[in-house]
Amino acid sequence: MADIAKEDDILGRARVRDTPELEAYYEDLAKQETGALWTVANSIEPWQPTPTSAPVLWRWEDLRPQVLRAIDLVRPEDAGRRVVYLRNPKRKEVSAACGWLFSGIQTMKAGERAGAHRHAASALRFIMEGTGAYTVVEGHKMSLGAKDFVLTPNGTWHEHGIEEDGSTCLWQDGLDIPLTNALEANFYEVHPDDYQTTNLPLDDSPATYGSPALMPELDKWDQPYSPLLKFRWDQTYEALQAYARVTDGSPYDGVIMRYINPKTGADPMLTMGANMQLLRASEHTKAHRHTGNIIYQVAKGEGYSVIGGKRFDWKEKDIFCVPPWTWHEHCNTQGGDDACLFSFHDLPTMRKLGFYAEQALEDNGGHQVVTG
Amino acid sequence: MADIAKEDDILGRARVRDTPELEAYYEDLAKQETGALWTVANSIEPWQPTPTSAPVLWRWEDLRPQVLRAIDLVRPEDAGRRVVYLRNPKRKEVSAACGWLFSGIQTMKAGERAGAHRHAASALRFIMEGTGAYTVVEGHKMSLGAKDFVLTPNGTWHEHGIEEDGSTCLWQDGLDIPLTNALEANFYEVHPDDYQTTNLPLDDSPATYGSPALMPELDKWDQPYSPLLKFRWDQTYEALQAYARVTDGSPYDGVIMRYINPKTGADPMLTMGANMQLLRASEHTKAHRHTGNIIYQVAKGEGYSVIGGKRFDWKEKDIFCVPPWTWHEHCNTQGGDDACLFSFHDLPTMRKLGFYAEQALEDNGGHQVVTG
Amino acid sequence: MADIAKEDDILGRARVRDTPELEAYYEDLAKQETGALWTVANSIEPWQPTPTSAPVLWRWEDLRPQVLRAIDLVRPEDAGRRVVYLRNPKRKEVSAACGWLFSGIQTMKAGERAGAHRHAASALRFIMEGTGAYTVVEGHKMSLGAKDFVLTPNGTWHEHGIEEDGSTCLWQDGLDIPLTNALEANFYEVHPDDYQTTNLPLDDSPATYGSPALMPELDKWDQPYSPLLKFRWDQTYEALQAYARVTDGSPYDGVIMRYINPKTGADPMLTMGANMQLLRASEHTKAHRHTGNIIYQVAKGEGYSVIGGKRFDWKEKDIFCVPPWTWHEHCNTQGGDDACLFSFHDLPTMRKLGFYAEQALEDNGGHQVVTG
Amino acid sequence: MADIAKEDDILGRARVRDTPELEAYYEDLAKQETGALWTVANSIEPWQPTPTSAPVLWRWEDLRPQVLRAIDLVRPEDAGRRVVYLRNPKRKEVSAACGWLFSGIQTMKAGERAGAHRHAASALRFIMEGTGAYTVVEGHKMSLGAKDFVLTPNGTWHEHGIEEDGSTCLWQDGLDIPLTNALEANFYEVHPDDYQTTNLPLDDSPATYGSPALMPELDKWDQPYSPLLKFRWDQTYEALQAYARVTDGSPYDGVIMRYINPKTGADPMLTMGANMQLLRASEHTKAHRHTGNIIYQVAKGEGYSVIGGKRFDWKEKDIFCVPPWTWHEHCNTQGGDDACLFSFHDLPTMRKLGFYAEQALEDNGGHQVVTG
Ligand SMILES: [Fe+2]
Ligand SMILES: [Fe+2]
Ligand SMILES: [Fe+2]
Ligand SMILES: [Fe+2]
Ligand SMILES: [Fe+2]
Ligand SMILES: [Fe+2]
Ligand SMILES: [Fe+2]
Ligand SMILES: [Fe+2]
Repeated sequence: MADIAKEDDILGRARVRDTPELEAYYEDLAKQETGALWTVANSIEPWQPTPTSAPVLWRWEDLRPQVLRAIDLVRPEDAGRRVVYLRNPKRKEVSAACGWLFSGIQTMKAGERAGAHRHAASALRFIMEGTGAYTVVEGHKMSLGAKDFVLTPNGTWHEHGIEEDGSTCLWQDGLDIPLTNALEANFYEVHPDDYQTTNLPLDDSPATYGSPALMPELDKWDQPYSPLLKFRWDQTYEALQAYARVTDGSPYDGVIMRYINPKTGADPMLTMGANMQLLRASEHTKAHRHTGNIIYQVAKGEGYSVIGGKRFDWKEKDIFCVPPWTWHEHCNTQGGDDACLFSFHDLPTMRKLGFYAEQALEDNGGHQVVTG
Repeated sequence: MADIAKEDDILGRARVRDTPELEAYYEDLAKQETGALWTVANSIEPWQPTPTSAPVLWRWEDLRPQVLRAIDLVRPEDAGRRVVYLRNPKRKEVSAACGWLFSGIQTMKAGERAGAHRHAASALRFIMEGTGAYTVVEGHKMSLGAKDFVLTPNGTWHEHGIEEDGSTCLWQDGLDIPLTNALEANFYEVHPDDYQTTNLPLDDSPATYGSPALMPELDKWDQPYSPLLKFRWDQTYEALQAYARVTDGSPYDGVIMRYINPKTGADPMLTMGANMQLLRASEHTKAHRHTGNIIYQVAKGEGYSVIGGKRFDWKEKDIFCVPPWTWHEHCNTQGGDDACLFSFHDLPTMRKLGFYAEQALEDNGGHQVVTG
Repeated sequence: MADIAKEDDILGRARVRDTPELEAYYEDLAKQETGALWTVANSIEPWQPTPTSAPVLWRWEDLRPQVLRAIDLVRPEDAGRRVVYLRNPKRKEVSAACGWLFSGIQTMKAGERAGAHRHAASALRFIMEGTGAYTVVEGHKMSLGAKDFVLTPNGTWHEHGIEEDGSTCLWQDGLDIPLTNALEANFYEVHPDDYQTTNLPLDDSPATYGSPALMPELDKWDQPYSPLLKFRWDQTYEALQAYARVTDGSPYDGVIMRYINPKTGADPMLTMGANMQLLRASEHTKAHRHTGNIIYQVAKGEGYSVIGGKRFDWKEKDIFCVPPWTWHEHCNTQGGDDACLFSFHDLPTMRKLGFYAEQALEDNGGHQVVTG
Repeated sequence: MADIAKEDDILGRARVRDTPELEAYYEDLAKQETGALWTVANSIEPWQPTPTSAPVLWRWEDLRPQVLRAIDLVRPEDAGRRVVYLRNPKRKEVSAACGWLFSGIQTMKAGERAGAHRHAASALRFIMEGTGAYTVVEGHKMSLGAKDFVLTPNGTWHEHGIEEDGSTCLWQDGLDIPLTNALEANFYEVHPDDYQTTNLPLDDSPATYGSPALMPELDKWDQPYSPLLKFRWDQTYEALQAYARVTDGSPYDGVIMRYINPKTGADPMLTMGANMQLLRASEHTKAHRHTGNIIYQVAKGEGYSVIGGKRFDWKEKDIFCVPPWTWHEHCNTQGGDDACLFSFHDLPTMRKLGFYAEQALEDNGGHQVVTG
């Protein structure tokens, strides 16, 4: 603290001391809806970001029963969506899991169906349990199995449900609702017919756009988001394994791939991206930090992450977040099997706006000292 | 109000009523850093945006003397920059003029020079008064006259000063500091040598990139911002007059042009854009509203704008803001001369993230009923 | 013919008749390396393109033995490449199969290896027979099986060979050599070490870039061609079948997909593209014509195509070409199985230059009258 | 020659010697519309390009009287356009001035008007003499003065004429007709009404798009070519002078700028680009060579160029060409004034297709030995 105070006492920083004259001046400025920049400059122009979010891990063994409990407490048609959301203790006022990202766990029973709607916020889902889940996006219906990843982009009509012959399903929702609200750009509409009707064949989106390095010759896609709306787990895991055979991987993330819009190679939605990464047996990555918020779900295996100096042990389906500019490293504690982490984040937002910055930890062999 | 409550009572909105059972459930959820979405859903997914900023007009006749008063109160080398900032009464906590945009009026005397620094936030300046002002960006020094517009993009070393033979200058600063902070991505560095040294000829940027539809054949520019860092008022006004001869203009904005990166046609910086618009003699535009925050400075003439139903009369050098999703229309009250409005805004951010939305006012011939 | 002559006798066409005066004038012009435009205008500005190439079908049963015969006649180290090329009877002077496209059939025996080299021309290969074939491009070695498609883009070091334990292989080469020569832009270099050495794992390119809708997070690819250099037949056929389940397909091409650069969605090389199309059992497409040259190889099944009014019957491995602006339609004569056509073409060149044009045949239910 | 034969006798080149067996084989191949690659390989895969065009200079003092002579010989309504074209002695068969580029000198008298038409070929014009010339492109009418540069892009309706109160005009036409024909993609249409009718104000294109670094806010331009169709000489020369004050320029080209599409920064048309370059008093550039064809017109001053070892002296309005991969350097022989060269070329085609290559002359201080 003393340190920082000293740093601010140099040329190029505000270092004006209060005087009675200045105080009178500040009062006069306030009357005209103005202020003196030097009274706030050092705080609004910090040397580096200080994240407001806390690193948090939500255990699936804690979450699951609470989410299931909601089945008897509320109906989708009253709740809108039967979702328990992850509330970062430092971001309660914006209902965010981390930074400007929302996340929740949703559950539906066989035969349930939520009404179609659309909003300016973008959404994604990562399926956790159950059979028979489906999502319909702009008339494209997709069947969903465990660990499949599905998009409901910005402005698209969408609805979710479980087939009559399915089982109770649980999935993680990820949205940029807090960002959309912060930018005062959220709109919401309920579908005029309550539900979408569609003549399109089931899973037409993955059948059309989900093959490697091939596109329909006659494609007319012109939306700013991915025409591929569902990414299958079996293909994703296979891809990671193939890539793992030929790469050393990242020192900070192991073998890490990015879900893309196959039509352009860009992130699949405008504001949020998603990754799946594989940590080899016993792999312990080095620490780095960067801007942007990341929310992880453990897709396979067990281990721990050190985030901001604190150790978070995780196993399959646990969820945790890494706030901006916070050191983090990951460790697969399994000696004989790989571990996989799904994550979604606002890095596309950060990159588009020129706000992405990254730093490797140099000290201590690249590893944090665990203090928490 | 009653109206909205009714609207939220439909399928597709959250309409769960509290019960003792639910209240117990909510308490349990809170213990696990979670919450029930339906308790916040309608508020975090509003039907449409409700801006938090107030429309405000800052009169130059009020601002100018207060800003000049600072000359005797603080030195640039202590204040960092001698700036009186515009503080929206609803955005005090983030020191913003509107939304996530910062703006202030800066003044420097002949021979003064502020230290070089850089930050993740982007900045722009619109010169208001005085002679001899200059800005140096990454070694490119630019001389600045009244109504010239100059950029200091994200991450560039920059400094400002007034030549010894100049006069006291005033200019408006525009920055995305509040946005950069909200996204937890701000960094600040003081130049290791306090000031930049440069061998580049004065005004090399406009000499190289400031001509119509011509680019250096051998240009190696690879930055995400405009290589043209200064936009001259005489050329801008001439451009508007030429365009005015061949266009009807926009019903909402008159004859409006956008400052661009001449290398790409895109906005000159990643997060913020700027426009100059001309209202013909007696022109009164129709009202529309859209997402994004706009801060206007009257570059020429006088008139008024109706913003959110309230009339704001303006004349040259007055500054006013239009918050997101707020109806606005402009009127040039001069019968014999055109009026010009300079503006800067965060529309590039909104557009990149898919958050731009716009609506024309249909009622009352497209004009607001003035209530304030 | 009389018809066309008449058409040229209108305003907007050259219709100057020779006179003694004009003839004297033309002679004077010729002495100054000039000419009168109106003497050539109608011929250099035709109403529509007249292709110089003939439609040709090369039967595999004819080609194969001739190609194999070369094995005993020349060694790769003397021939450079042991290739029998397809010589369009109307394009002999440029050694082209169609338009500005070169194609040939290459064969190598187990253990043979051709020297590494590079050239400004782009090349592609479609494997026809044999096991153990491989290609090395810029150090990336790829194993090749029947119907795999492999790239050796513009300017890349490349070499081909057959593993010691492989069998005699045959494949089709496609190159834009004639185009590169026509544009006077061809360069050729022999590798300084005769062969490339590489430490990269086998098939690292498909392992890294060959998975659906996933990209390495940390990818640094910055070349103008696809980082995926090999496209597997099993995945391609599977993709077509999946897509066939959800699309009606094109009236002119059935179920048709384009091989893409998975990093960008663009064609995999700058000048040439490639497609695979599936004709359903008994499908007979309608006729259209367009600019650009296409060379087809039958990947599966049998049928015929009508090209410029002439019927060409084909079966697996037969090769045929469709010249520019020539009507063509395809027919799968198999009642119980699909047929597949591989094709490569210069449509990326045509599209980049603004030269793509297309027309559907309106008459006769969209089918040509077969005259040849 | 002996030299090259030797070079071709290495591994990686074709070096098969004829035998009776091979000759029989070649005959058999020919019967099947095939050939042996190794019989043509070294010629179709040259070590480097050998241009087919000759460097030529056309003197204005020779051209001008011949062009004017045509006024009495043909009427525009019979000739289509009254153009004397530049016929490279090595490219007579394609009516090209250099490579695949056409160029001619057109003349029209006051009150003459040529019929509207369109074609797949792109065209440009550089005005040489006279007053009152105009071009109409897609309804946009542009007035043209000396040294103005105007586009009639690929596929646009266009027509030229001279106002009644104008004088006899001469201008240089540049087109990619030979390229369009080589790619078998040319189409030609005469306007159904013979002439375009238009309500658009005169010079609306430059008034809208011709200002530095400003674009209409509401622009809907979606064509692949520049919305700015006319580039004024006064602005161009001013731009060069401004740029000259702050740049050393290119060692090969002096102070050189590229005409761009101001909406994108790209070349203004898909296949052809244009430059204006300024050689300072007494400047003598170094020699380089590159792929692509360039046709120069001297816009100001006098000097000479050395092209392929031959010296070509030029003065204002002279035209000369530089074929691909031919050494060239330029010299302004005026001690007290700058010289300017306008040029147009097919470099956009070369760059889009990956065919651009460039080399500096290392020997002799970077200057050619003049042999011709
Ligand atoms: Fe939703
Ligand atoms: Fe990270
Ligand atoms: Fe600053
Ligand atoms: Fe507006
Ligand atoms: Fe090759
Ligand atoms: Fe076709
Ligand atoms: Fe024309
Ligand atoms: Fe050159």
